[in-house]
Amino acid sequence: MRFTHETLPQRVVFARGEAAQAVAAEVEALGASRVMLIASEREATLADPVAAVLPVAVRHDEVVMHVPVDVARRARSVAAEHDVDALVSLGGGSTTGLAKAVALTTGLPVVAVPTTYAGSEATDVWGLTEDGTKTTGVDARVLPRSVVYDASLLRGLPSELAVASGLNALAHCVDSMWGPRADPIDRALAGEGIRALAAGLPGIAEVAGTDGDGSDESAIEQTLYGAYLAAVSFASAGSGMHHKICHVLGGMFDLPHAQTHAVVLPHVLAFNAPHAPDAERRIAAAFGSASAVAGLAALRARLDAPRALRDYGMPHDGIPRAVEPILAAVPGNNPTPVTRDDVTALLEAAWAGEETA
Amino acid sequence: MRFTHETLPQRVVFARGEAAQAVAAEVEALGASRVMLIASEREATLADPVAAVLPVAVRHDEVVMHVPVDVARRARSVAAEHDVDALVSLGGGSTTGLAKAVALTTGLPVVAVPTTYAGSEATDVWGLTEDGTKTTGVDARVLPRSVVYDASLLRGLPSELAVASGLNALAHCVDSMWGPRADPIDRALAGEGIRALAAGLPGIAEVAGTDGDGSDESAIEQTLYGAYLAAVSFASAGSGMHHKICHVLGGMFDLPHAQTHAVVLPHVLAFNAPHAPDAERRIAAAFGSASAVAGLAALRARLDAPRALRDYGMPHDGIPRAVEPILAAVPGNNPTPVTRDDVTALLEAAWAGEETA
Repeated sequence: MRFTHETLPQRVVFARGEAAQAVAAEVEALGASRVMLIASEREATLADPVAAVLPVAVRHDEVVMHVPVDVARRARSVAAEHDVDALVSLGGGSTTGLAKAVALTTGLPVVAVPTTYAGSEATDVWGLTEDGTKTTGVDARVLPRSVVYDASLLRGLPSELAVASGLNALAHCVDSMWGPRADPIDRALAGEGIRALAAGLPGIAEVAGTDGDGSDESAIEQTLYGAYLAAVSFASAGSGMHHKICHVLGGMFDLPHAQTHAVVLPHVLAFNAPHAPDAERRIAAAFGSASAVAGLAALRARLDAPRALRDYGMPHDGIPRAVEPILAAVPGNNPTPVTRDDVTALLEAAWAGEETA
Repeated sequence: MRFTHETLPQRVVFARGEAAQAVAAEVEALGASRVMLIASEREATLADPVAAVLPVAVRHDEVVMHVPVDVARRARSVAAEHDVDALVSLGGGSTTGLAKAVALTTGLPVVAVPTTYAGSEATDVWGLTEDGTKTTGVDARVLPRSVVYDASLLRGLPSELAVASGLNALAHCVDSMWGPRADPIDRALAGEGIRALAAGLPGIAEVAGTDGDGSDESAIEQTLYGAYLAAVSFASAGSGMHHKICHVLGGMFDLPHAQTHAVVLPHVLAFNAPHAPDAERRIAAAFGSASAVAGLAALRARLDAPRALRDYGMPHDGIPRAVEPILAAVPGNNPTPVTRDDVTALLEAAWAGEETA
């Protein structure tokens, strides 16, 4: 037990059906009177009731994926022109990301209202894209002061997207068990996250193709709670073997992000669990299962999760090409030592969609 | 799931055997160059190696239990006279408390190095005593910026005191499950705390009466980790039924603090567990036991924990006198509704030392 854990300051409010009142209370607590409300056009109807109870100086809806620098620059200008004293973001990761980009240069406080399971709202990581290259960094100023989670805002999220996003959060939790800076606090929070995601995800999957009838809101809420913990633990622990593999594969073969994560995760878990007894115990307990691998397999079966990389366009002869960059990227503290043969075997299994349990 | 959770910013460093280097790194990260090192005379030999590697402007050893206002005033004057820019406290709750008292009026950053399991280092609560009356408050300025936990510093702590202090931390964890502001995050952290305390406390108890030989340092470290989580979760959740009962009994009959907590805890747990399924599940899992009550009973048996209030001077006819004030103090959100008869039965059982499992 030798570690440094940095706990970041943030207020988290769970207020189902009451985002507007909760955001207004957080803005008032900040002493802000000129709010810039950031929400894309697509989120406008969700944002309207929030806008109605806030001292809004300006609404801004130019939200673009990966936060291009020009988009960030324009948002900063708007904030300056309207002399705003707080930012409220309502939307997914790109919306939160834009608020962070404004906070990065202005120091303005952010109140984030997430409408996906991305988790960006719970971290001090910012990202900006220029000429197709993404730059990321860590800065205390971009961490939202408050996050308001209102499950009712996510009822319109297509459930396939919701499940993919929730599985991504699950991957963050699992990888937080052995990331390069992972400590027992990260593992405890990640375990709690897995528990919540395992409880919430099946409920979200079941409303696939429906508009939902409100009965899914507690499942959404559990998933939001799990996604929040996933982000907190992952930001602290750092990318482990799973995310390194997915990053290499995604970049090399242009694979879809969420599906790649969903396919690779059980194979990394099966590979690391035998040499990570604390993680194994925590993950199994979180799933309420006899083993971590069996618990993940059972959840995946309920969710009909993606199984094989070959289904998403990865060529079989890509495996040998991916091995070296993956070997180079896996953190040195990975619980199971990783050889060339191990990576090859893992990629073969993930490519073909073999079962791990 | 409707709650507001406020996470407080703090760096926590576990550095067994390396307090001096770790404190020096934290002080350097603060950019401080004139440190006031607060440690009582009794802790001087533990503090010397830390002092040796710090830019110490002044050492201060007037540490008094419950932080009398005069003592705080003198410490503030010393800080001002020596133009210090950071406070390092090394000691138990009273030492941390004095550093907090100085930080309260000066805003100086604190690096805390605990030598007991008190947990004050992980909270933003301060306390000052004047004319026998203790005033407490909450202020962001008093939360230590960094805490350095070094198990080797606690090897000289008499083990009876250590176990009592550890059981007190356990009571904080259990009561965090249903305190007035308890939320799932508090419960997850408290569950992790119970797990660590259950792992660490028997090791600490076994070296009773010995000086220890170093083999107990991992037990001390687990207990420190548990005590840290106990403080974090309890500060967030607030005093529940257990602490309200102990507060009334302690004030009314001048009972010893640690023993009162140790005796009362299993009775409150047995009373609340049937109506607190989430807490019951978490506590049982943390103990690795079939039930929360059985897990606590097994740990208490290993520790030979105090059993009966009558052994500590509580008169039997005190029970009816204590019932009303306890009824008035128990939070309204207590999982099991509390009647006059319930309190009477609970006090009778705790007075006589009845078994709960």
